Amino acid sequence: MNELALLAQALQRFADERQWGPFHAPKNLACALSVEAAELLEHFQWLTEAQSCALSPEKKAEVAHEMADVLLYLVQLATQLDVDLLATAREKMRLNALKYPAPTPPAQG
Amino acid sequence: MNELALLAQALQRFADERQWGPFHAPKNLACALSVEAAELLEHFQWLTEAQSCALSPEKKAEVAHEMADVLLYLVQLATQLDVDLLATAREKMRLNALKYPAPTPPAQG
Amino acid sequence: MNELALLAQALQRFADERQWGPFHAPKNLACALSVEAAELLEHFQWLTEAQSCALSPEKKAEVAHEMADVLLYLVQLATQLDVDLLATAREKMRLNALKYPAPTPPAQG
Amino acid sequence: MNELALLAQALQRFADERQWGPFHAPKNLACALSVEAAELLEHFQWLTEAQSCALSPEKKAEVAHEMADVLLYLVQLATQLDVDLLATAREKMRLNALKYPAPTPPAQG
Repeated sequence: MNELALLAQALQRFADERQWGPFHAPKNLACALSVEAAELLEHFQWLTEAQSCALSPEKKAEVAHEMADVLLYLVQLATQLDVDLLATAREKMRLNALKYPAPTPPAQG
Repeated sequence: MNELALLAQALQRFADERQWGPFHAPKNLACALSVEAAELLEHFQWLTEAQSCALSPEKKAEVAHEMADVLLYLVQLATQLDVDLLATAREKMRLNALKYPAPTPPAQG
Repeated sequence: MNELALLAQALQRFADERQWGPFHAPKNLACALSVEAAELLEHFQWLTEAQSCALSPEKKAEVAHEMADVLLYLVQLATQLDVDLLATAREKMRLNALKYPAPTPPAQG
Repeated sequence: MNELALLAQALQRFADERQWGPFHAPKNLACALSVEAAELLEHFQWLTEAQSCALSPEKKAEVAHEMADVLLYLVQLATQLDVDLLATAREKMRLNALKYPAPTPPAQG
């Protein structure tokens, strides 16, 4: 079983133990995911791009926790909707490769 | 190597081939992640919670693609910031277990 | 001068006194606006639609403050981009009327 | 009657004619507002701060329309919750003035 599937199982058990099922309709999880993505963005809103590449260790730890929150809601939403996140991500990459073809390297002579 | 790490590698190669590096400052990736999370939410905004639990196969496929987009930006941001997403997610779950203790099951007699 | 223009003036003076100009690039204000919209959404994420119609006075006051934050950033962004918010909103309503025609009331006879 | 109140009236009539009332629970309007804020942000996600200060007229018109969408949902949410947006925005500015005091100008001699 891959790591995301293990994480999904642990999250399901966590929610079941707390009887959070009724709150975890896909709509609500999509709201929560959007809220966490914004909490992540908040750390960057007044930084320049260059500053965002050079976070202090403390700031980076905070940012990493917001990223984890995004992942946790994404995985829970995937469980509720029975979506295979990794397979869909790979499929999306194949579609992106068609949409944005890589430039051909210049011929060598 | 785990699946997220493989996905991270493939995404890095994809961005390198297209010379997207200069655009992928963490601030920009955090913006893009937030935008994708909202595109996901858009599918649910006028649905009831009950309707969000019973998506048609076509709608579910669209939703799954938006979820994949969220994952792809999250993984790219993790690469840029050198964050171990799975380890941080597990750490966050341990913190959540302390913050929201499971109710003690009633004693049996 | 209309109320939004007065608000815009007051906000400009407020930012000038604090020398916040360099931080208020449109990109950054758009990030901040998105973050405030999510803070507003956070109040509703675990509520049913029905519950969201019946907020307690305390909760409603908190929600109203988040709404004000959204408006304040929107007005500041309009100042930076020299956009007439009210005129554009009225134009958008005209476009929406074409896009979503009102159903014809049944003929009376 | 001020301009936002007039806009609120027109929006209410527009929604009534289309029988959109049942969809316009505050939770749903908060979702829609967040989605529009992200559509606004999308225009800026790959721009530098400097580029975001120098939009082409075409891009600026698109951005202005997204800003109008944010305002339209914000005003509709204010109607549903019976919130006075302008009064709350002014109150929020007073609170911000206490939270972020203006620096004292240097004494002149």
